[in-house]
Amino acid sequence: MSTQTIDELPTPSLILDRAILHRNLKRMSDRLRNAGVILRPHLKTAKSIQVGRMAVEGHDGRITVSTLAEARYFARGGFKDILYGVGIVPAKLPAITELRRQGVNLRVVMDNLAVARAIAAAAISGDTFSVLIEIDSGAGRAGLPFPELPGLLDIARVLRAAPGVDLAGVMTHAGHSYHQSTPEGIAAIAEQERRAIVGAAEALRAAGIPCPIVSGGSTPTAMHSADFTGITEMRPGVYVFNDLDQEFIGSCGAGDLALSVLASVIGHYPHRNQLLVDAGALALSKDISAQEFQPKVGFGTIASAAAGAATNGIAVVDCSQEHGFVGSNRPLPYGDLPIGSRVRILPNHACITAAAYDRYYVVDSELDGGRTVVDVYDRINGW
Amino acid sequence: MSTQTIDELPTPSLILDRAILHRNLKRMSDRLRNAGVILRPHLKTAKSIQVGRMAVEGHDGRITVSTLAEARYFARGGFKDILYGVGIVPAKLPAITELRRQGVNLRVVMDNLAVARAIAAAAISGDTFSVLIEIDSGAGRAGLPFPELPGLLDIARVLRAAPGVDLAGVMTHAGHSYHQSTPEGIAAIAEQERRAIVGAAEALRAAGIPCPIVSGGSTPTAMHSADFTGITEMRPGVYVFNDLDQEFIGSCGAGDLALSVLASVIGHYPHRNQLLVDAGALALSKDISAQEFQPKVGFGTIASAAAGAATNGIAVVDCSQEHGFVGSNRPLPYGDLPIGSRVRILPNHACITAAAYDRYYVVDSELDGGRTVVDVYDRINGW
Repeated sequence: MSTQTIDELPTPSLILDRAILHRNLKRMSDRLRNAGVILRPHLKTAKSIQVGRMAVEGHDGRITVSTLAEARYFARGGFKDILYGVGIVPAKLPAITELRRQGVNLRVVMDNLAVARAIAAAAISGDTFSVLIEIDSGAGRAGLPFPELPGLLDIARVLRAAPGVDLAGVMTHAGHSYHQSTPEGIAAIAEQERRAIVGAAEALRAAGIPCPIVSGGSTPTAMHSADFTGITEMRPGVYVFNDLDQEFIGSCGAGDLALSVLASVIGHYPHRNQLLVDAGALALSKDISAQEFQPKVGFGTIASAAAGAATNGIAVVDCSQEHGFVGSNRPLPYGDLPIGSRVRILPNHACITAAAYDRYYVVDSELDGGRTVVDVYDRINGW
Repeated sequence: MSTQTIDELPTPSLILDRAILHRNLKRMSDRLRNAGVILRPHLKTAKSIQVGRMAVEGHDGRITVSTLAEARYFARGGFKDILYGVGIVPAKLPAITELRRQGVNLRVVMDNLAVARAIAAAAISGDTFSVLIEIDSGAGRAGLPFPELPGLLDIARVLRAAPGVDLAGVMTHAGHSYHQSTPEGIAAIAEQERRAIVGAAEALRAAGIPCPIVSGGSTPTAMHSADFTGITEMRPGVYVFNDLDQEFIGSCGAGDLALSVLASVIGHYPHRNQLLVDAGALALSKDISAQEFQPKVGFGTIASAAAGAATNGIAVVDCSQEHGFVGSNRPLPYGDLPIGSRVRILPNHACITAAAYDRYYVVDSELDGGRTVVDVYDRINGW
């Protein structure tokens, strides 16, 4: 293993630069610790115990997950305080109970009176639940919309009245921060997020209902918020790897992209100034979110020789299932990219790209430019 | 297992309707057999031995795959004539050899003189290869563009001169048929495909080079071609399941969609006429190809109660990693879709959606409307 280089890996493969990962983890961890906020990393991006353990260093070990498969996997890995961040439904409560009986404080989120009643009913048997009420701070996804917070107190009272149910707090996700591309724009969303989640907590407290956890989070708002007052924890996720979308938003710099897809050049088509690589829709994903601010990134850009370095204007402009179409506004340097040569493609959206792989081949750009495979981390996919 | 119903499955799950699958398989198999063309199904869609075995019934067992992982998996399943349909590179030749030494005629495709020379060099050791030259019949993906066919004879002569190398024929994929939506438009592409691939075969034969296999294929052209003269085999893939894109193109009818994603309703948001389901970007994929002809399908449409039935105007209009945003131009029927209820979502592009799952839960709409899980088929993902 210790002498394997990326030239010997199969293609496509997923490459993780440990040096960049460490920098990304430290930057967020330090920033939140200095702000007096606990980091509850959202491990939906990494889905890796090895990355998860590094991500919680300097905090108290709490994490966020997006699937029950992740909850089980991280529980096996020894994590004890896990927030399952997708609205719970009654049919999933037995799976929650199973992990809680093993000593894992697997917490759930919800925003609906019917679900509150189902949780209360499930707790009658003696099982316990820890529940956060989800608040919509402006993203228009899940949660009770702020400032109306329709039904907040009704839901809270049903949960409070149920023996065995711990109403642990409130949570929100400012997903609309992904559509801003200036620090000021993101900071404004962060303040909107803070006001909504702190406002919801205060509405509970004003009714005599404790609200110990006030949970916000998204990578952009965690990076650019000017004020965390009242927030107890943040749940950023994609910061662990970053990607082209985060670069264009301004959550990170061009040198902070830890993840890339290793692909082989499989064909030259000079009559249309294209070449093909063996990384297509499945290897890269069809996520085009980074095109919102940079349409020319296509489905990912070709990294220069040095890991994570700035792109040089060559991108995957189209893809079918296993073919990536690589193009550029300038003539492609076919001589530098012969058939069988390898390129590294920076993903638009790391969370979605990574989900096609069962492992990370870990390299270290500070060691030898990222040539040697220094480790392999596993991942948990599916549900 | 025999008494499990889809109400007991975890969500999201991938549901395959066996009755529709059988109809789809029979329609294509009969059509090509009646035309005197052998079906070499492209199993990149199903990636399932069980589906593969059914797909080759009435033909001679040859198949197409898109990854080496598929090649190994189908070889283990007893398939003996496998075309790896993505341009080969020298670094992958040892993997090809490994399977060929096990008695599997794993054939490769290529379009480049450098690769022809690498194959010839690899054969010097005594290993054999079976090679098809790829032709671009107008899709602008891989292959030597027709009618110029630059380098065709040079490549063919290098392969012919190498002991142990079988130049088996020529192949093409008319991927541009996916951008037509009338039978006439598709038939015109099919004729373009036929002329190109038969033209390439004739160019070889005119130079004294045999060309036994003349391989075309795409689901639309296989369904709508008026003339297969000169073509020996076709390689359609998505027809096994069909999807919204194929429906809108006209490759199938609304009742021919065999695949759906089972999801749970996790939240109601009447203030914006939306609800959320627990199937998002990973469970559905971010493939939006079906929007080319029907923008309102979003990331998939909600199927009516009966399996595979026509949609009723409700679609997944947006998605984040594990959240699907469901909307409609009309007020959503929240009473019919309470929290925790289950919906089936018809995918835009079956090949890409299915790749997120490791199994198919098989139901049969002709048995009991598709309620009981009658079988589980596995899948091979990754590379």
